[in-house]
This record gives sequence, structure tokens and C-alpha cells, in this order.
Amino acid sequence: MKFRLETIDKESKARAGVVSTDHGEIPTPMFMPVGTAGSVKAVHQRELEHDIDAKIILGNTYHLYLRPGTALLRKAGGLHKFNGWNRPLLTDSGGYQVYSLSANRKINPEGVTFKSHIDGSTHHFSPESVMDVQRMIGADIIMAFDECTPYPCEYAYAKASMELTHRWLTRCVDRIRTTEPLYGYDQALFPIVQGSVYRDLREASADYIARQDQPGNAIGGLSVGEPHEIMYEMTDLVCGILDANKPRYLMGVGTPENILECIALGVDMFDCVMPTRNARNGMLFTTQGIINIRNEKWKEDLSPIDATLGGHVSTFYSKAYLRHLVINKEILGAQIASIHNLTFYLWLVREAREQILKGQFAGWKNKMVKVVSQRI
Amino acid sequence: MKFRLETIDKESKARAGVVSTDHGEIPTPMFMPVGTAGSVKAVHQRELEHDIDAKIILGNTYHLYLRPGTALLRKAGGLHKFNGWNRPLLTDSGGYQVYSLSANRKINPEGVTFKSHIDGSTHHFSPESVMDVQRMIGADIIMAFDECTPYPCEYAYAKASMELTHRWLTRCVDRIRTTEPLYGYDQALFPIVQGSVYRDLREASADYIARQDQPGNAIGGLSVGEPHEIMYEMTDLVCGILDANKPRYLMGVGTPENILECIALGVDMFDCVMPTRNARNGMLFTTQGIINIRNEKWKEDLSPIDATLGGHVSTFYSKAYLRHLVINKEILGAQIASIHNLTFYLWLVREAREQILKGQFAGWKNKMVKVVSQRI
Repeated sequence: MKFRLETIDKESKARAGVVSTDHGEIPTPMFMPVGTAGSVKAVHQRELEHDIDAKIILGNTYHLYLRPGTALLRKAGGLHKFNGWNRPLLTDSGGYQVYSLSANRKINPEGVTFKSHIDGSTHHFSPESVMDVQRMIGADIIMAFDECTPYPCEYAYAKASMELTHRWLTRCVDRIRTTEPLYGYDQALFPIVQGSVYRDLREASADYIARQDQPGNAIGGLSVGEPHEIMYEMTDLVCGILDANKPRYLMGVGTPENILECIALGVDMFDCVMPTRNARNGMLFTTQGIINIRNEKWKEDLSPIDATLGGHVSTFYSKAYLRHLVINKEILGAQIASIHNLTFYLWLVREAREQILKGQFAGWKNKMVKVVSQRI
Repeated sequence: MKFRLETIDKESKARAGVVSTDHGEIPTPMFMPVGTAGSVKAVHQRELEHDIDAKIILGNTYHLYLRPGTALLRKAGGLHKFNGWNRPLLTDSGGYQVYSLSANRKINPEGVTFKSHIDGSTHHFSPESVMDVQRMIGADIIMAFDECTPYPCEYAYAKASMELTHRWLTRCVDRIRTTEPLYGYDQALFPIVQGSVYRDLREASADYIARQDQPGNAIGGLSVGEPHEIMYEMTDLVCGILDANKPRYLMGVGTPENILECIALGVDMFDCVMPTRNARNGMLFTTQGIINIRNEKWKEDLSPIDATLGGHVSTFYSKAYLRHLVINKEILGAQIASIHNLTFYLWLVREAREQILKGQFAGWKNKMVKVVSQRI
């Protein structure tokens, strides 16, 4: 994996660049739709490519490990072959889901023992095993195994957890260094900065992570319930320490507003379930603001979902028709809303990139944040 | 609406023809995907047109009347405009759903009073009001308001019900004769033959319906639980009485086998929820036979869903991937299976038509029935 930094905005810390992987190039800033168990919910692979124009998607190691499992993924030749997505893929480490979804998890210096949320079966993740699993999934970018602290989090716990994450990182790096990709293309490891909301811990962690000299770096443990101002403060702090010539990935963020603000702080990569999960509940992100399509207000609105955004789905279907589908729990409602929201998110980061390249990002961002965060 | 009969098979009663509507031509035999509330479940309109190549779809008057309701449909300019489907549409009369879905229904000579299955609100359908509703929905082909008898059904009830259906038909015909389409294109009324499983009632009903001289005719009250042999016997009997120069529509049928057998008896039009409903449960109809994709057997089968059938979805996704999605209740599983099954159904009737035109239908049908009904 290579990263080419193209330009840095004069009035903010926003950057434009290109991440190159063996499955193709990804212009940054980028947003990665979340394909939990090998499928971006309610969206065909063809739609991801042609309608949404996603350049990379994310898979969850925890889900893929449980189902379909590494044996089948290995037999298929990796997730790309299994689900037919031939553009870049990133997998998380599974850590976040172990903490949020599984039962009876027991964490110790060696790793984590947990029970599957599907059938209660017992499993064990270690830094080494998670690297092996990600080798078998075959993502282009793979994430270090970390502990993601909740919010709020006591200082002592945050510090001990960060230190554990750092020790585990050494083991992840060793494992990747001493093993080979299984499918003939490169896999880049991204370590993850932790440290909760404590400036000194974030600084120490960013410094430690930067010294690993991996192809890219991630910021974890944010967007877990803390105020946005704290998320921005921590992100700003960490971006100032991480190598400018490597892509910076802020994990699990966020709203359109969060993404614009964090682009301004120097973040290059984002992922979030929000566009797809909220779509299934009828919340739409549009170029005019946020819509709850279930509201009576849209009942007779026969105008396109978002004519300004463009794209087949957002211009072909009307708000009134989509509302009818969502109210009636028609699957097509989830499909339309998911494609629309992802189209919007991908448009947003593409537009941000254009503005950075044109040297107009900061002003555009301040205007756009107001528009995209207003409820209409 | 016009019907042009092209040819009748020498060794069976199968026919090929073309139904012409103001929204386009439909070669027969035809199969109509069911778009209950204005959406064929889990399938985009674009996919219906480009992948499945459905020439006509069906909407349910009962569902559309309750939601989105006639006021909104009228404001939109009819269902075509509301859901963006610009090819022909057929609506049923709502009768079947009133009997099968709603609560507290009370039938009398004037019409039916029932409570909505959604919110318990009270509504009334009469032959006249149902014609008015179908005018407002704006389908190209609309169905008479009938009573669909269950199976089994006492002779006395079947006879009285048939007579009621006949009296209601006169009122439907009058209403259509004395009202105009609302959106500038023609709407053709199809009366419905009833009479349960009784030969003399079916003969009397077919004779009565034929004498109405409407643009097409339908056979109702079959595929409601009776043995297939009885369904075929009644269909054969009725087809022998209905005008050969008008299309014959066998409502709610059926399996691929049922469709092939009834094409051989002279039926031109079919609709059924089976390809979409069963898809959502993991049952696939393929050119090799019927697959329960949930079975362990398909777990590691990385071959396409149906390479012989062709089409993007059936060749792009593997059986193992689809099984993974269905087992994990991923929406994409329902989407893929629904498109695949409908592609298969449309392929089946298109292929039947080709065989009729080539004069090879009977032999092909006997072979094909065995293939498509076997479980693999």
C-alpha cells in the first residue's frame, strides 16, 4: 500500500491524497461503507460500484470469523472472491464487536475469550490469531488488535488499556512481519491510537503508534459517546503527531458534520454504519439537510429524494413513494434509503476533496456543515 | 387493450400471442411479478425492467387502497407515476385480500364491510367502489370484484357465491362503461370465472363470463388448496368455453410445474407471490430444479446460483455466498433470491413461448416439468 499526499489546505489541516492498493486506488478523503458480514446491508455490489461509486468497503472480522468462517473464506480465495467485490477492502480487528456484541468476554494479557452472540459458542482472539484471520479474509488494509475503551472511562483504566493495546500491537506487527499474504496481493497493517479522552495518553499513544512506521495509522476509541468537541480535540492532537505522509483513519466516524470537521483536522479515512443503519429507520442525509422520511410532512411530496445529489435512486424515486415504502416496512424502502445515504456520503467526501484541491475547503466546509446538519 | 393470437400448439392447447396496452406490448404466455403495495418486494424497478425483463407487474387493490390510499395515488397521477413503473400494470379487485387478511368482514348483496389488517379501521368495498379505486390506481388491466371461494367449499355455498359474483360483475361492467379512465390511457376490465371445483358451476360461470364480451377473462378460485389434478381439470374445462381470441388469466398460479401444465391447457397469463415469497425463505427455482439454499449441501458451493439461466445476479453471486446471506438474515439475501427467482419465472414463460412458436411445446413441456419440479 502506498499513500501519496497531494495537497494540504491553506486555511485548515485538510489534505487530499491517494491511497494505492493492489485492488485499486482510493482518492482521499475517503468514506468506507460498512459491509459487516461481507454485505453492505440492502445494497448490491453492482450498486456499490456503479451508483454509489464506493472505492473501498469495510468488513468486520468478528462477524466474518463467526460466519461464514475462515475455512470457507480461505476456500473461496478470500472475501473479495467470496462476495464479488473487486475493489479495495479493509477489515477491522474484531475487537470492537467482541466488546460490544459478545457475552462473557474475558480479557487478559494474552487475548480475549468470548462467547458468540449467535450461538453462545466460546472463542478466543489473540493479536496473533486476529492477524491470521485477517490474512484469511484477505483485506487490503488490516487493523491491529486493540482494546477500544468506552466513554466515560477512568484514567487508570484508559492508561492500562492503552498499554495493553501497545503490547498487543508489537505482537500484531511481529505476526504480520513473519507471515505472508495468502492470495498474492499486499496487506497493509494499520496500528490504532487509543488513550480515551486524556491528552497525555493520546499523545503517548500517537507517539508510540507513529514510531511503528506502518503504512497507515488509525485513531480508535472516539465517537463512543463523548461530546463532539472532545472528539475533535483528541483528533486534532493525534493528527499533529502522526506522520503526515501516511493516511490517517478515524474509526467509526460519523455524521456528515463530524466527517467535514475531522477532514479539516487532517483525517483521510472514515467508516460508519450511520448511513446504512439510519437509512433502515427512515433517516436520510441529503444535500439540503437531514430528513426523517416517516414524517407526515413528506406524505404527498412527489419530488425526487434529492435532485441536487443526482444518481439513479435519488432522482428516480420520490419522497412520497419512499415514505410509503418505509412506513409499510417494504424491503425496497431500506434499499432505496441505503443507496441514497451512501451516495450522499461518497458525494460529500468527493466534494470535500475537490474543494481541498481547489484551495477552497475551509470556507466551503463552514457553509456545508450548517446545511448538512440541519433537520428539514 | 388488444390481444393477437399468434399460434396454437398442435399437440396441446398452448397458445402464443401478444397483449397490447397503452403502456406497451406483453408477449404471452406471460408471468406477472406481484408488487403488492406498489413494490415487488426486495426488487428495484430498474431491476424488474433490465434484469428480470418483466413486461407487466401486478398491484393489490386492497393494499394500495389502504396505503398509500387513493388520494395520494390520484395526486401522483396513478400508480405508474407513483412508483415509476412505466410498463403495463394489472390490479386485482381486492376481494381476495379482504377475505384472507382483514378482520370482521361482512359480506352482503351490496358489497363487503371489513376492518383493515393494519389499524382496524372499518371500510366498505362494493363492485362500484372497487372499480372507482382501480380507476384511481390506473392499472392497464383491472379485475372485476368477485368472491373467491375457499377450498373445500360446499356446493350450495359455491353456487350462491358464484351467482353473487355474476351479479356483482354486471355492476362492475356498468360502472366501467359509465366512467372514464383518469389518466388518458385505456383500462381493460377482466371478469372472473368462479364455481369452486364443481364442473357444472364452472361451466355455467365460464359461459356467463364469456358472454360479457370483455377484453380478457380470468379464472379465479383455484390454487387455493385443492389437488393439482382438480385445478388442471377446472382450468381445462373453463378454457374450452372462454373465447379463444381473448387472453385467459389464471389467477394466483403457481409453481413452475403448474404454469407449464396450465400453459398446455390454454392459459396465457399468470401471477403468483411464490417466486418472491419463497425467495425470502431461501427457496430457489433454477434451471436444474428446486434448491433450498439453507441446506448444508450448498455451504461450500462456490459455483454461480444458476449459470445456465444467465442474468447478472444469478451468475455473479455464488450459492455459498447467497446461503451465507440468507442464513444471516442479510437483506441482500432476499434481494438476490427474489431477482433470481423472478428471472427464472420470466425465462420459463419466455422459453415456453419460443417452444410454442417453434411447434415443439408439448415435448419440451413434458421434459421441463420434470426438471423444474425436482428438488436438488
